[in-house]
Amino acid sequence: MIIPKQKKLDDQQLKSLKKVLADFNCDIQAVGGTTRTIYAILGDERQELMLNRIEGLDFIARIDTIQSPYKLMDRKSELAMHKIKAGSINFGDDLIFIAGQCTIDIDNPQYFIETAHAVKEAGAHAIRGGVWKPRTSPYSYQGESKSIDILLRAREETGLPVNTEVMEYRHVEIAVKNKIDSLQIGTRNALNYSLLTKIGKLTADTQTLILLKRSMHMGSIAEFLCAAEYIVSNGNPNVLLCPRGTLPAIEGYRNYPDECITPLLKQKTWAPIVVDPSHSVGKAIYTPHAALAAVAYGADGIVIETHVKPLNGIGDDPKQAITPDVLTKLIPDAKALFTRRKAYESYLADSNPS
Amino acid sequence: MIIPKQKKLDDQQLKSLKKVLADFNCDIQAVGGTTRTIYAILGDERQELMLNRIEGLDFIARIDTIQSPYKLMDRKSELAMHKIKAGSINFGDDLIFIAGQCTIDIDNPQYFIETAHAVKEAGAHAIRGGVWKPRTSPYSYQGESKSIDILLRAREETGLPVNTEVMEYRHVEIAVKNKIDSLQIGTRNALNYSLLTKIGKLTADTQTLILLKRSMHMGSIAEFLCAAEYIVSNGNPNVLLCPRGTLPAIEGYRNYPDECITPLLKQKTWAPIVVDPSHSVGKAIYTPHAALAAVAYGADGIVIETHVKPLNGIGDDPKQAITPDVLTKLIPDAKALFTRRKAYESYLADSNPS
Amino acid sequence: MIIPKQKKLDDQQLKSLKKVLADFNCDIQAVGGTTRTIYAILGDERQELMLNRIEGLDFIARIDTIQSPYKLMDRKSELAMHKIKAGSINFGDDLIFIAGQCTIDIDNPQYFIETAHAVKEAGAHAIRGGVWKPRTSPYSYQGESKSIDILLRAREETGLPVNTEVMEYRHVEIAVKNKIDSLQIGTRNALNYSLLTKIGKLTADTQTLILLKRSMHMGSIAEFLCAAEYIVSNGNPNVLLCPRGTLPAIEGYRNYPDECITPLLKQKTWAPIVVDPSHSVGKAIYTPHAALAAVAYGADGIVIETHVKPLNGIGDDPKQAITPDVLTKLIPDAKALFTRRKAYESYLADSNPS
Amino acid sequence: MIIPKQKKLDDQQLKSLKKVLADFNCDIQAVGGTTRTIYAILGDERQELMLNRIEGLDFIARIDTIQSPYKLMDRKSELAMHKIKAGSINFGDDLIFIAGQCTIDIDNPQYFIETAHAVKEAGAHAIRGGVWKPRTSPYSYQGESKSIDILLRAREETGLPVNTEVMEYRHVEIAVKNKIDSLQIGTRNALNYSLLTKIGKLTADTQTLILLKRSMHMGSIAEFLCAAEYIVSNGNPNVLLCPRGTLPAIEGYRNYPDECITPLLKQKTWAPIVVDPSHSVGKAIYTPHAALAAVAYGADGIVIETHVKPLNGIGDDPKQAITPDVLTKLIPDAKALFTRRKAYESYLADSNPS
Repeated sequence: MIIPKQKKLDDQQLKSLKKVLADFNCDIQAVGGTTRTIYAILGDERQELMLNRIEGLDFIARIDTIQSPYKLMDRKSELAMHKIKAGSINFGDDLIFIAGQCTIDIDNPQYFIETAHAVKEAGAHAIRGGVWKPRTSPYSYQGESKSIDILLRAREETGLPVNTEVMEYRHVEIAVKNKIDSLQIGTRNALNYSLLTKIGKLTADTQTLILLKRSMHMGSIAEFLCAAEYIVSNGNPNVLLCPRGTLPAIEGYRNYPDECITPLLKQKTWAPIVVDPSHSVGKAIYTPHAALAAVAYGADGIVIETHVKPLNGIGDDPKQAITPDVLTKLIPDAKALFTRRKAYESYLADSNPS
Repeated sequence: MIIPKQKKLDDQQLKSLKKVLADFNCDIQAVGGTTRTIYAILGDERQELMLNRIEGLDFIARIDTIQSPYKLMDRKSELAMHKIKAGSINFGDDLIFIAGQCTIDIDNPQYFIETAHAVKEAGAHAIRGGVWKPRTSPYSYQGESKSIDILLRAREETGLPVNTEVMEYRHVEIAVKNKIDSLQIGTRNALNYSLLTKIGKLTADTQTLILLKRSMHMGSIAEFLCAAEYIVSNGNPNVLLCPRGTLPAIEGYRNYPDECITPLLKQKTWAPIVVDPSHSVGKAIYTPHAALAAVAYGADGIVIETHVKPLNGIGDDPKQAITPDVLTKLIPDAKALFTRRKAYESYLADSNPS
Repeated sequence: MIIPKQKKLDDQQLKSLKKVLADFNCDIQAVGGTTRTIYAILGDERQELMLNRIEGLDFIARIDTIQSPYKLMDRKSELAMHKIKAGSINFGDDLIFIAGQCTIDIDNPQYFIETAHAVKEAGAHAIRGGVWKPRTSPYSYQGESKSIDILLRAREETGLPVNTEVMEYRHVEIAVKNKIDSLQIGTRNALNYSLLTKIGKLTADTQTLILLKRSMHMGSIAEFLCAAEYIVSNGNPNVLLCPRGTLPAIEGYRNYPDECITPLLKQKTWAPIVVDPSHSVGKAIYTPHAALAAVAYGADGIVIETHVKPLNGIGDDPKQAITPDVLTKLIPDAKALFTRRKAYESYLADSNPS
Repeated sequence: MIIPKQKKLDDQQLKSLKKVLADFNCDIQAVGGTTRTIYAILGDERQELMLNRIEGLDFIARIDTIQSPYKLMDRKSELAMHKIKAGSINFGDDLIFIAGQCTIDIDNPQYFIETAHAVKEAGAHAIRGGVWKPRTSPYSYQGESKSIDILLRAREETGLPVNTEVMEYRHVEIAVKNKIDSLQIGTRNALNYSLLTKIGKLTADTQTLILLKRSMHMGSIAEFLCAAEYIVSNGNPNVLLCPRGTLPAIEGYRNYPDECITPLLKQKTWAPIVVDPSHSVGKAIYTPHAALAAVAYGADGIVIETHVKPLNGIGDDPKQAITPDVLTKLIPDAKALFTRRKAYESYLADSNPS
C-alpha cells in the first residue's frame, strides 16, 4: 500500500509511479480515503527492488506492508483515518439509525413513503427499502427494478439518504446510475466474491456506501474482513460491516444474535459496525432489546426494519418490523447508552493504556 | 398444584389433605413461596375424582393444572407472585450484582478477603467464591472444603451474602450446615438431575438461593426450565437462572454469548435471570460490554468474576476477571441502563396491551 | 407443472398451450427430463379456470399441483422418473466417482493431466479441476480462463467428462461455449439466486450437469432444495446435490461432516446425492473413512480431491488431496459397500412397505 | 506413571514404593491393566529427586511422564497395551454389538426378556437396558431399582453381559453389588466429575466396563478424554468412549450425528470407540445407515436401541428403537464392512509408514 506525500497523486506522478510498477509486472489501484488517497499494489508486492524504487520517488511518503490478509481493512492500515458519513454525520460521532421496510411493495407505494416520513420524524439518518429481494423460493416475489422510483421519491421527499440490496451486476449498474446512496450486500451473497469485486469497481468513483452483511454461518473474523477487502481493494473504502445473526438459530429467534462480535471486529478493523437486530431475533417484540445490546457491545449504527403497518408488509415475516412509534422511543434510549458507552470506553482506554 | 386459602396449611389440614391423596396413591410436596405455600401433587394428578375431593376441602382455594412440563416454573404458576431476595433487596426492584473470585486460593486467603471488601465498596450485593471447583483435568486443583472458612469470614467482615458452587451431595450438606446463602450449580451439572433433586430437598427448609447455570450446549428453553423444576418441585422455589454462553464458541471468546436468551426465558417463567458475562466472553476486556448487553436484554442480575489481582488468581484464565475499579465504573452505568430499560418495557407493555 | 401425453409437445401444441396461458398472464418454462419434457407454469398457477382449460387440451395428460416450495425437486414430482448420467452411467445404477485437483495450475499443467489419467485408471467416472476459484483473500490466486484448455485436454486424452466451478455469468458462458460437461456451484454461491437462475437458463439447451454444493451453514433441507429449484425451474433438471460439511467445524476437521443429511434429502427429492468428503474433513488421511460413511448413508456418488503430488498442489490445503493409489484402493471398497447397502435398502423397503 | 518390572508389585514392593513417595507428600493409585498394573502418582510428580529415587528401586522398570492432560488415556501411555473385553471377545478383534431397550418397563418385563433373547439370536454381544433413567421432566418415569432383577434375569437366561445407566453413587453401589457387567454414564453426566471419580474408585476392584457417553455439546477431544481420565486415574481402565450426537441437531434428526469424531479420537487414545447411532439420529429408519457410517469411520462397537415391540416401549421416542429382525440383517453387513475397513487400514498404514 503506497502512501503519497500529498492528499493525492497528480497525473504526472501517477504516470511515473505506474511506470516503475510496470517494470515489475505490477499495477496500482487507487483507494480514495477522506484524508488521502492510497494506492494498493496489484501483483507481487514482495519485490524488494521495486519497493526501493517506489520509496525513492520524491512524492511518495512511504510504503505500508501490513502482513494481515486484509491489509486495507486492518485497523493498522492508513485507511484507519478514513471517515465514513451517513448524510452529513460521521460514523463514530453519533449513533446512526437506518430504518425502513424490508421490501418496497410496488402495489402499495404509500406504505413505503409513509414509513420514510415516519422514520425521519423518529430521528433516523437513512432509509432502507428493498427494490430487489433474494427469496428462498424461486416462486416468491423477487422485487422489481421499477420500485427504485419509489425509493427515489422517498429520498426526495425526506432529504434522507437511501439504501437498497443488490444481488447482481445489473442491480449495481441501475443503482449507481440512479445515484442510490447506499448498497446492501445480503447475507446470501456475503461471500460472492465476483459481486464484491464488481461493486468495488463500479462504485470506485461514486464512493457509494456499501453495507456488507455477515454471512449466516459462524465464520471467522478474518473471512468477514477479507470479504470487505474485495470491495475496498477494488477502489471503494466506504464499507460498513453488518452482523445480522448466525445459524443455527436460538430456539424462538430467527437466528442466533451475534452483536457480540462487535468488539472483536473493532480490535481488527477501522470500519464502522452497523448491527441488524431485526434479522437477528426476527420478531419486533425483541428487536429493541437486541438494538440496545448492540449499542452496549459497541455498534456505530443500527439498521432496523420498520413499517407503518407491519401486518401489511410484504417480504419477510410481518412480525419482524417495528412501528415508527417504537423507533421514536428507542432512538433516544439507544443514544443515551451510546454516549455512556463512549465515556466508559474512554475511561477503560485511559486505565489500560496498552 | 394445590393452592390453599390461607398462606399455609396447618398440621390438621395437611393431614386431611394427605389422607385424600393417599387414597389415590399420591402424596404432596410443599413449596414455600413468599406470598403463600403451594403444594405440588406427587403421583398421577390426572385422577378426576381425587381432584374433586381436594377441591371439596374447605381450606383449599383451588387446583392449578398447568399443562407445561415445568408447571411450577411457568410464569402462569401461582409461584409467579413469589419474591426472591439477594440480602435485603428483591430481584426485579434493583439490578443485582454478584461479584468475586472464581476460586478461593487457600494459600492466599487475603486476595479473597480484599476482593470481597472491594466489590462491596463498588456496590455489589453478594460475593461469589469457589470452595470446590469442577476442573476439566483430574490433575488440576479441585478446591477443598476448608476454604469455606474464608468464604464465611468474607461474609462476616462485609455483611454481604455469599455464593459458592456445589458438585455433589457432600458439598450441599457442608454448605447448608454452614448456612451459605447461595449455592451455584455449574454448567457441567446443569442436567445432573440427581444433584438437582437432592439440592431441592436439602434446602427446602433453609430456602437457600440456588443459582442454576445453563448447560453449555444450545439446549431448549424447556430443558432449562425443567432442570429448575427439579429443584423447585422438591421444595425450594428460590431459583435464579443463569445464561453463561454456549458452545461452540465465537472465535475470540470462550463461548458464544447467550444473554439474548433472557427475553425468551422471561416469556415462559417468573424466575429471575442472572447473566454471567465473564464465562460468556472469557476475557475481562470484553466483560463490561457483555454485562451491559445482558441488562439491555432484560437481566435482573449480573454475576461477574472480579479479583483484586487477576494475574494472581487461580482457577480459570487470569484474563477473565475484571478488577474492582472496573466494577466500580460498571455498576452505575448498568443501573442507569436498567432503569431506562424498565421505563421502556413499561412503555411497550402499555402500548401492546396483549 | 403440466405433463404432456407424449414425450414432448410439438410446436403447434406449444403454441396452443401458450395461448391459453397468455389469457391469464402466465407463461411456461419447459424442463426436459429423460422420460418426458414437463412444463412449469410461470405466474399465478392457482387460477382454476386456467387449469381447467389446460386440462381440456387433448395433448395434455394432467396437471400436477405439488404443494411443496420445491415442486420440481420434490420426489413426488413427475421429474422423479428423470435419469441423470455421468458419461454413460446412470446415477443410482453404480456408485459414481468424480476425482481430480482442486485448482488447475497453469504453470504446471502436467500435474493435472497426470492426475486425470491416474484417476481414470483408478476407476473414476469424471474428472474435476478448478479453472476459476473463489478465494477468501482477494490477493490469492483466483484461477484464470485459459486453464480451461488444460481441462479440455484432460477430457480429450481420457475420454471422461469434466467438471469445473463457476462463480459468475461470464464463467458459465465460457464453460457452456466449451461444452464443459459439468458445472459446480460452490458453497459460497449456494444461495446466490441470481447465478442459479442464470445457470438454469444458460444450460437449458445443453442440459449440462450441475453439481450444487450445500451452503456451509446448518441450513434446512427445504432451503437446499429450493436453491436447486432455481436451476431446474429455469430449464435444466440435471442437478446433483452435494453435502460438503457445515460450519462450525468439528475440532480437527475443516468442517462438521454432514454426509448424514443424505437419507433426509432422499426422503424429499429424487435428485442424486454426491457427497464431498474432502472438504468435510479437510485432511487426506480421513477422507477415505468419510467417503465410506457417505456411501453408508446412501450417497449416489463421491466427489473427491485427488492429486498425483498433493504437496505440489495449489489452492486448498495440500494435505487435503488423496493420491491416485489411495483412490484405487478406495473405489472397490466403496462399491462393495454400495452394493451391500442397496441390497439392504431393498430388504428394508420390503419389510416396511409403508 | 510408574511401570513395574513384573506384572504387578507385591506387598513388600508396594510398601517400599509408598515410603519413598510419602517423603515427597505423594501417594499412588494402582490401575490394573491386562498386561500389567501401572501406578499413577498422586501429588506433584515433577519432583526430580523423588523420580530419581523411584527409578532407583530395583523392581521398577521406568517412569512415564506423558505431557498430555490425559496421560493414562493417551495412546502413548503404557495402558495402550490394555485389552478390554465384552464377554469373551476383545474389542478390536471383532465388531461388538450392545443392543436392547432404552428403559426396562417394570410392568411389562416380558418385553425386555424377549428383546434380550432376540438380540442374542441376532448376534449381539451384550444387552442394554435402563434400570434408572435421567428424564428431562421431573414428572416423567425415572426408573426404579427393582428393575435390576429383570436385567439380571436377562443375563442369566442369555448368558450375555448386561449394561445399565447410573446417575448417582447409590446406583453405582447397587449395580456393583449386583455385579452388573457394564455401567453407562449418560450424556447429561458426562462432565459430572464427582460421579466419574466415584465410579472409578467403586469399580477399581471389579473392573466393571464403563461406557462413557460424550457430552451433548460440541466439546473438544481433550475434554472427552479428560472425563475418561477421571475414571481411569481412580483405578478402573475399562473405559469405552461413546459418541452419540451433538446439539444443535440436524433438522430431521434428534442430534447432529458425530460418528465422524472416531478417527480423531483414535489418533489420541487407545480406548475402544463404541458409537450410539440410535440417539444420534433418533429414528429407527435411519439408524442402520448411521451404524454402518460409524463402522466406516472406525468404530469398535455399536450400541443400538432395540425392542421387540418399539411402539410399546417406554422411555425415549418409540420410533427410536429398531426391531431384532433389522438387527439380524444389520450385524453381518456391519461386520463385513468392519473386516474390509480393517484390511483397508492395514493397507494405508503400510503405505504411510509415518
